[in-house]
Amino acid sequence: MSRAGGQTFVYDNPPLIAAHQSVVGPKEGKGPLAAWFDTVLEDDLLGQKSWELAEMEMVRRCVQAALNEARLTDEEVQAMLGGDLNNQIIASSFAARALGVPFIGLYGACSTFAQALVVGSALISGGYLDNAVCAASSHYCTAERQFRFPLELGTQRPPQASWTATACGCALLKKDGNPGGLRVTCGTVGRIIDLNVSDANHMGAAMAPAVFDCIAAHLADMGRAGADYDLIATGDLGWIGRELLLELANAAGLDLPPDRLIDCGASLFYQEQDAHAGGSGCGCVASVACGWLMKRLEAGDIKRLLLVGSGAMFSPTSSQQAQSVPGIAYAACIERED
Amino acid sequence: MSRAGGQTFVYDNPPLIAAHQSVVGPKEGKGPLAAWFDTVLEDDLLGQKSWELAEMEMVRRCVQAALNEARLTDEEVQAMLGGDLNNQIIASSFAARALGVPFIGLYGACSTFAQALVVGSALISGGYLDNAVCAASSHYCTAERQFRFPLELGTQRPPQASWTATACGCALLKKDGNPGGLRVTCGTVGRIIDLNVSDANHMGAAMAPAVFDCIAAHLADMGRAGADYDLIATGDLGWIGRELLLELANAAGLDLPPDRLIDCGASLFYQEQDAHAGGSGCGCVASVACGWLMKRLEAGDIKRLLLVGSGAMFSPTSSQQAQSVPGIAYAACIERED
Repeated sequence: MSRAGGQTFVYDNPPLIAAHQSVVGPKEGKGPLAAWFDTVLEDDLLGQKSWELAEMEMVRRCVQAALNEARLTDEEVQAMLGGDLNNQIIASSFAARALGVPFIGLYGACSTFAQALVVGSALISGGYLDNAVCAASSHYCTAERQFRFPLELGTQRPPQASWTATACGCALLKKDGNPGGLRVTCGTVGRIIDLNVSDANHMGAAMAPAVFDCIAAHLADMGRAGADYDLIATGDLGWIGRELLLELANAAGLDLPPDRLIDCGASLFYQEQDAHAGGSGCGCVASVACGWLMKRLEAGDIKRLLLVGSGAMFSPTSSQQAQSVPGIAYAACIERED
Repeated sequence: MSRAGGQTFVYDNPPLIAAHQSVVGPKEGKGPLAAWFDTVLEDDLLGQKSWELAEMEMVRRCVQAALNEARLTDEEVQAMLGGDLNNQIIASSFAARALGVPFIGLYGACSTFAQALVVGSALISGGYLDNAVCAASSHYCTAERQFRFPLELGTQRPPQASWTATACGCALLKKDGNPGGLRVTCGTVGRIIDLNVSDANHMGAAMAPAVFDCIAAHLADMGRAGADYDLIATGDLGWIGRELLLELANAAGLDLPPDRLIDCGASLFYQEQDAHAGGSGCGCVASVACGWLMKRLEAGDIKRLLLVGSGAMFSPTSSQQAQSVPGIAYAACIERED
């Protein structure tokens, strides 16, 4: 109901995260976070005829699991907010078709999950919705052939390339006036920032400036320092992008304690898993947040989290036309209320 | 701040449409609505090197014109909500990059402009934003080669095909407690409806069921009849889809007076202009609403408008995989306040 000024929404009635679910593919299920994910797929085709249909089915199952956890029926869901990397966000919209719920399609590339939390929380706190499903997904096999090369080509990947996660995360937000639980307390809408990185294989470098801009805006709007968060989790910067973010913060004198800064993409795989710069894709930050970080909040390990999803707003067409890769980021503050 | 129940948001502090601008291409500028559009382009390449860059430039100019009309600088804009038909909505995000404003990327296919009005009005009425730019665009040359065939092929079009409009519309929403002006008073979020139309050239048939579902939900939620609106303007159903909508309404006993029902796509071109079933594309409903309908509201010709944008949530990939074409619709009620 109120603005902190600048780009940040403050939720006067912070929505409860009533349920959260994560589904990941076999490779992600062999990484350091394996034990935290709710569902690890044995087969990333999920018995479907195509990778795209598999991704749709992964989204549908993940959302359904969250509804089951919260004991909500499809008919009781007031809105689904989400998106994915497929052209025309078909994974999310086909999942919304299967569920039959009102749908608000979003596109923020790999930042979409954080974007959904920021917009969905505003709609709930503002009294427009009693509940909302926020979901985002990606699939290695749909993304690679769409954005880069068909997998069958066996194209070599440069070391700065990230690995699109086969993953989905879903958080069910709910209006709830009782104390306790995980709450989304404020959220920041980022700007499109473009420092002329034109290497479509170097997402960390393309997105780091937008992440920096969003975190700086968030902290200024809220009058906070980085140390006011137990953890700041960026989306898909990967190992290289995280270093670039710290360099930008350092150069600008922004307080961003390295020991409280993690990156979801850099956390998803072991370096030995050949994921190069780390994980990426809408499903990366979504599954890591819903599978790992929210559980750490519930366990009391951390109490206040800033989740910063970041996206590269390019297309193969824009790259072929020699355009650089613009980045965007959204930040959602999630707190454990006692 | 309140819900009418069901799928409809009621804006307790209805945002003012402080400015609205439309830009259309040369063909659209020879249609029946030519005199109403704010800018008719002489050259739909806008001096750019590619159709995609031309569409980005069209969006940027349209938004800039709206900001000029409202005497707002880029720095004063708190958010831009919008999208387009290009993969990864590059026209909108690159325009947001040029403007440097916080960006909420949406994807509702051709319904995106109505979707932006529904979400943007909630954010303003809820107190999160003082102003918001809602914009959507399409370009015949970017859409045809992406969704169907390269123009150079000269592929013959079936009679039920619609013509993607080269057009952009932009409405600047503003928090304003003074009486008077055009206001967005309520908005409905649609569901994905799919009656198994699999002809990717027959958008009217694919979208009519979603439009019917959205209008029916809106009227039920608000306790209104179709006759409570001076005009109900659907998005891109075209001449054929409009008839299908009337058939669906008739079969369900829904009051939808044909003399108060127009379709933006069916209004954009003369039948002699070889546009087959009518206009379509995100820019169709956006430019017709901002260029024609809002001016009719201001002139007092109509007082209460229901703008129903509709989108086909498919991709060439989903069509190639033999999936049907799901539809969605969003409805925004725009009223003239005396």
